[in-house]
Amino acid sequence: MKAEIIAVGTELLLGQIVNTNAQFISRECAAQGIDMYFQTVVGDNEQRLLDSLRLAASRADVVICTGGLGPTQDDLTKDVLASLTGCNLVLHEPSMEAISAMFASRDIHMVESNRRQALMLDGSDPLHNETGLAVGNALTYEGTHFILLPGPPKEMKPMFTKYAVPWLKLRMNDEVPLYSKMLKFAGIGESNLEHQLIDLIQSQTDPTIAPYAKEGEVTIRLTTRAHSAAEGEMKLKATEDEIVNRLGEYLYAAQDVPIETVVLRLLKANKKTLAVAESCTGGLLSDLITTVPGSSESFLGGIIVYSNALKHGLLGVPMDILEGEGAPGAVSSETAVILAEQLLVRTGSDFGISVTGVAGPSPSEGKPVGLVYVGLAQKQAKTEVYTLQLSGNRESIKHRAAKRALYQLWKQLKEN
Amino acid sequence: MKAEIIAVGTELLLGQIVNTNAQFISRECAAQGIDMYFQTVVGDNEQRLLDSLRLAASRADVVICTGGLGPTQDDLTKDVLASLTGCNLVLHEPSMEAISAMFASRDIHMVESNRRQALMLDGSDPLHNETGLAVGNALTYEGTHFILLPGPPKEMKPMFTKYAVPWLKLRMNDEVPLYSKMLKFAGIGESNLEHQLIDLIQSQTDPTIAPYAKEGEVTIRLTTRAHSAAEGEMKLKATEDEIVNRLGEYLYAAQDVPIETVVLRLLKANKKTLAVAESCTGGLLSDLITTVPGSSESFLGGIIVYSNALKHGLLGVPMDILEGEGAPGAVSSETAVILAEQLLVRTGSDFGISVTGVAGPSPSEGKPVGLVYVGLAQKQAKTEVYTLQLSGNRESIKHRAAKRALYQLWKQLKEN
Repeated sequence: MKAEIIAVGTELLLGQIVNTNAQFISRECAAQGIDMYFQTVVGDNEQRLLDSLRLAASRADVVICTGGLGPTQDDLTKDVLASLTGCNLVLHEPSMEAISAMFASRDIHMVESNRRQALMLDGSDPLHNETGLAVGNALTYEGTHFILLPGPPKEMKPMFTKYAVPWLKLRMNDEVPLYSKMLKFAGIGESNLEHQLIDLIQSQTDPTIAPYAKEGEVTIRLTTRAHSAAEGEMKLKATEDEIVNRLGEYLYAAQDVPIETVVLRLLKANKKTLAVAESCTGGLLSDLITTVPGSSESFLGGIIVYSNALKHGLLGVPMDILEGEGAPGAVSSETAVILAEQLLVRTGSDFGISVTGVAGPSPSEGKPVGLVYVGLAQKQAKTEVYTLQLSGNRESIKHRAAKRALYQLWKQLKEN
Repeated sequence: MKAEIIAVGTELLLGQIVNTNAQFISRECAAQGIDMYFQTVVGDNEQRLLDSLRLAASRADVVICTGGLGPTQDDLTKDVLASLTGCNLVLHEPSMEAISAMFASRDIHMVESNRRQALMLDGSDPLHNETGLAVGNALTYEGTHFILLPGPPKEMKPMFTKYAVPWLKLRMNDEVPLYSKMLKFAGIGESNLEHQLIDLIQSQTDPTIAPYAKEGEVTIRLTTRAHSAAEGEMKLKATEDEIVNRLGEYLYAAQDVPIETVVLRLLKANKKTLAVAESCTGGLLSDLITTVPGSSESFLGGIIVYSNALKHGLLGVPMDILEGEGAPGAVSSETAVILAEQLLVRTGSDFGISVTGVAGPSPSEGKPVGLVYVGLAQKQAKTEVYTLQLSGNRESIKHRAAKRALYQLWKQLKEN
């Protein structure tokens, strides 16, 4: 099955945003065994969009469009596909009701143009938008499958994965589907991980082994072709075993979940609670944790002791540890220990994690950017401190520090 | 001058990397007044690359290619352009010398294929590669200018900016560069903002008016052609004044910065400090604030009172307000007020912001998902509470709530 992507939006041609949608869709298509031949970006221009759709239809089995489904006059994708196919645009009632309900709930007057987001090509299948208003469309015209997705990644991704991919799978013929498994690692950098698997990666044929990194996490995707999950698992087993054999201590999940999800599962299973004290991560660690639905069952809360005054005032770090000639300073293992232990005292949690370090861009207390201490305290056990030297810009360091703190807690929970 | 970009590389079609090159080149072209009409990605395939080059040449004045200049058999861009134009490939001696010198200095045996990186189309202008080995090319064939750049951004960017842009400028006729200005709004949704400007947007010619939204912020980009910043400002003035006239209360910056940056600037200018108490935003508000370098000058820290126990224990909200028959509950204006006011008492900050609400996915205390109270306390003034009904998923609600809290503080700082 040959596919192409057409991303619609003048903001892409002006370089205001980067086309991450094309990467996401390409990767997902590869995982399904769909071959990607071209990606095109075209502006909000009727004639050029029509030309692009026509060209793509002439050479591909699947044309996946992103963008141009919004309410404004610039949003043309459905209109242009309507003129290419001769289909009329009709109202998708459930989407219209969702749009009306949203405006009513927010007590905002709905303007007429918002109706445009509920339009669909007559005879197409609607693709549900779980995170936004514009309905997606899927239809087959003269042998080509067209998929219309919204531009915002937060809307596009769930629509593509949950609704467009199953729709496409029903229309795939003799392709043996790809079977993939994600192995998720934390506490190890991408290049170190790759180095330890380089012989496997270089000699790979089936399964394929694809490592890729997000801030503070590395994923390996193993892929083979299989008719069933059982067959897929069997074909992946030898490779997976060898990877686990080498890197098992960093492997926190064999599915695509962030480490905070796994940590929260373990806390809940063990009926334990957590509180955090953040300095250099500045709230990011708490934010990651509370992004997981149900986190309130195990996460009591946190204290962001950004200033020394709050490290002292809210968590009792003595001023002579924080400041003055020869003092260890705010960025020190001493401070990390007190912050973590005081969390247990002041919140009653079972675990306390502290993070204090230099996120940059400038050094602090004469300490280098990227130096971070993570404290991990638990009831009736010795408090541990982990010293990290992280690289990257301010945002990367915050992210890597937060993920490493979660990794240390995960290791502890596994050992308990 | 009409331009297109062709990015060459199967790794892009597999989604292994994102096409940041296209964004960079598009933005630079826009700044030079070169209009970008299409971006294409094609794999390392001779026939499809030839088809793409031919199509681009048929509709553009400038075709900018990235990738495919390396030493391997997969690197085809020069070969394919040679067969399109009928030019031979010849050795660029200075590049060959640089390649030989590099291998000699690192004491590595140079394999024959590395010579490929020093090839250029006969009659083309070489583009110097300051940060890598493959020489770039620029040539004009049948009225179309072709620019060949390497794929790695670290090599492509300096080559494009320092060598390709000046080469193109010599070939531009009367294009006047684009001049853009970003107007940033918070506290108002995209569709409401567009609705209030719909007459301007629909009748736009010069300047152009392009709205786009990120979570909790809306940007309008005004663009015109001008020979200087002063001329650009003058040409934008009437439109900008009209927009400010209608929506000035939501306009927090006339440059592309997030609202947290503006809030921190105002706090610093007024020598005021801030602390936050977060329930439903779970650390995100603090994270946004501390992502701004230098935020420690004004931001003391925060307390993430995720559980009722911590709302009571750390910020003194009476249990009979939080729980029990007929109590206002954790999600209430009463709780928001106490949280915000207690921040002033317990941290000594000048401003205290609290956020408490239902981020979802399930209702809480019988209150609907999206209901959020923002409390804003300041020394010697009455505490304000803002009631929000936000839409979206858990992440969206957290994000919108955090941005609205920043918006309310920004308004307060402006009025003070």
